[in-house]
Amino acid sequence: MAKITSVSPLAPAAFPDLPVIDGVRYASVAAGVRYAGRTDVMLTLLAPGSTVAGVFTRSKTRSACVRDCQAKIGGDGAEGAAILVNSGNSNAFTGAAGDESVAAICAATAEATGLPAARVFTSSTGVIGERLPHDRIIAKLDELNGALDAAKGEEAARAIMTTDTFPKGASATVNLPGGPVKIAGFAKGSGMIAPDMATMLVYIFTDAKVSRADLQRMVSEINDRSFNCITVDSDTSTSDSLLMGATGASGVSVTSADAAFAEALEGVFLDLAHQVVKDGEGATKFVTVNVTGAESDTDARTHAMAIANSPLVKTAIAGEDPNWGRIVMAIGKSGAAAERDMLSISFGDILVAEKGWVAPSYKEADGASVMKQPEIIINVDIGLGGGKATVWTCDLTHGYISINADYRS
Amino acid sequence: MAKITSVSPLAPAAFPDLPVIDGVRYASVAAGVRYAGRTDVMLTLLAPGSTVAGVFTRSKTRSACVRDCQAKIGGDGAEGAAILVNSGNSNAFTGAAGDESVAAICAATAEATGLPAARVFTSSTGVIGERLPHDRIIAKLDELNGALDAAKGEEAARAIMTTDTFPKGASATVNLPGGPVKIAGFAKGSGMIAPDMATMLVYIFTDAKVSRADLQRMVSEINDRSFNCITVDSDTSTSDSLLMGATGASGVSVTSADAAFAEALEGVFLDLAHQVVKDGEGATKFVTVNVTGAESDTDARTHAMAIANSPLVKTAIAGEDPNWGRIVMAIGKSGAAAERDMLSISFGDILVAEKGWVAPSYKEADGASVMKQPEIIINVDIGLGGGKATVWTCDLTHGYISINADYRS
Repeated sequence: MAKITSVSPLAPAAFPDLPVIDGVRYASVAAGVRYAGRTDVMLTLLAPGSTVAGVFTRSKTRSACVRDCQAKIGGDGAEGAAILVNSGNSNAFTGAAGDESVAAICAATAEATGLPAARVFTSSTGVIGERLPHDRIIAKLDELNGALDAAKGEEAARAIMTTDTFPKGASATVNLPGGPVKIAGFAKGSGMIAPDMATMLVYIFTDAKVSRADLQRMVSEINDRSFNCITVDSDTSTSDSLLMGATGASGVSVTSADAAFAEALEGVFLDLAHQVVKDGEGATKFVTVNVTGAESDTDARTHAMAIANSPLVKTAIAGEDPNWGRIVMAIGKSGAAAERDMLSISFGDILVAEKGWVAPSYKEADGASVMKQPEIIINVDIGLGGGKATVWTCDLTHGYISINADYRS
Repeated sequence: MAKITSVSPLAPAAFPDLPVIDGVRYASVAAGVRYAGRTDVMLTLLAPGSTVAGVFTRSKTRSACVRDCQAKIGGDGAEGAAILVNSGNSNAFTGAAGDESVAAICAATAEATGLPAARVFTSSTGVIGERLPHDRIIAKLDELNGALDAAKGEEAARAIMTTDTFPKGASATVNLPGGPVKIAGFAKGSGMIAPDMATMLVYIFTDAKVSRADLQRMVSEINDRSFNCITVDSDTSTSDSLLMGATGASGVSVTSADAAFAEALEGVFLDLAHQVVKDGEGATKFVTVNVTGAESDTDARTHAMAIANSPLVKTAIAGEDPNWGRIVMAIGKSGAAAERDMLSISFGDILVAEKGWVAPSYKEADGASVMKQPEIIINVDIGLGGGKATVWTCDLTHGYISINADYRS
């Protein structure tokens, strides 16, 4: 793994104060899975009565723990649940040995916590194709179980980092007619970040009382508008997982029809998704791509992702070059419907191109000044219909090459 | 444009001796379109009786000259043909002014050469979105027409370069029952290179006598197995064009059923396509990706392109890291059918992974030694069917970032 020498320039000033979620406790430990001198395993325990929902990568080569989570996620046990995560080794493409590691970890976690193995969810993130030294994790389970603490969310967020340069947390409090409910979550992710599948490793908790079906519906819908709309490098992890637990400890019931809760939850999802992009490997710019006027929402997303994934667009942004020709190129290659003379392109409020050519009002100096900002908005109107989409990405810099040209060797 | 300071380490030792093709003459000139101190416009004239075929980018934002070529390519005039190409400005996304430039250049070329404008084909390559200063080109047409010379192919190949670090030529001679025929061609391309559309700028000529329909059929088919199978950066140009002219001067007739001719022609196409990859922006490795055993040829291509376009695979290759986990990741995300336990992966002759995990015989040192070579072969067998595909790509290095982070500013 490349040495991480500095925190992303786009990082938030500090990790947020995550509120205590009644019914959720965290612990982390240094188990030496791969890294030395840092925590690399975390356990989160959800109290009896909690519901759990999740979304997972659709990669055909997804990891053993992702397959195990997918098999369990529909279960509705009332005993509570455990989430056990290690960094440093993804346990992906490790054949039958990978499945054995997951089974061993789940059995040991079940024993340590007193839960059935069917209520233990695991994630692993890190190098692909190397056997997971699960004995090192299992040896720490009693220590982890004894250290569980409702206030240790930040430590848990740190234990799951790989090439991340900062831990990612977000929270919200919603005042509902039945009383206040709280939401807290954390995520990891920096490279191998692409959309259209599921997400990174993300864990979100609430003390609202939500049925499993309603929780799953909200998680799936909001995921489609948040984590599924980010890309760092168009590469999709074999391990992407999002788990959300609702403990019900607040006594306040929420359904998927509850707009105030869903809105607050979407805020937490988006906050974490944006933090993943802001920690994109080598990132120096956070870029929002808004596409409107496409023939359909699907076409709009295709155009937006073609722009957000184009190495030439991303290197231009890295160079602070208002090179709108490369945006035209990306729209042209996307495969979705477009007509040259109907397009318009703006950088922030600056109209750059319209009617098939550069806008008469456009001055290169204005475009260049937008490009110097750390956060850049690209607006594209296709001019053909009502389809729209927003995606978020970062620039492509020497830092990305440095991090990834010697990740493993 | 970034300064080109050194020739690609993958460049051929020298530009090949292009054979004279009877009926084809070339000229080039420094017109000052954008660059100073180098040639940037070339004219190729095909004698009366020549047939011309071509394939072009399918980008929705393709340039004015591409649209003009597409409208003309089906014509079957016996007057001969002219090909006029400039580098430095692509005349793409330049609105009605772009169409005016093409019309003006075609009219002036027609006048200088005595051909109808319908037999003048033009290409432009370079920056997108800036008005083409066509007067500078038109001012040089008489000089160009007066300098036409059958031996000046290399000079023509140099005049169309942009970020290319070397000119790209290839040729073949085929002994047919009716006598020998010759093929010569040249190409430009280095960045904004992606498949699934058409090609870069490529010009290929033969003295065989071929009907337009047969020439078009051969060009389209061979293009699908050569230029459409390369990728440097997954970005597709607005200007990609391939034109092929057959003068018939050898007196030897060829049809699309003639295997010996088609094979020689495919050799020239592949040679040029590979040279484009070897001059990929920042490239230090030439990579062949062979996928077999997929459910269909289409699935095989999808997997091969997912591998060839993955930034994480390409940076691993740049770092000479035999990181086969990233190949597993790319197969998993491609969307085509795959099953973890059926996959096998080799680097050259070295079996790396099979049956869902690393191969028992694999030693990291063996993989590392393959990765140190300048030309690397990645073989993937999906294990599900008979579909196969081969694509070619290069690595992703700091050089790519350097070239593209300040291309225009």
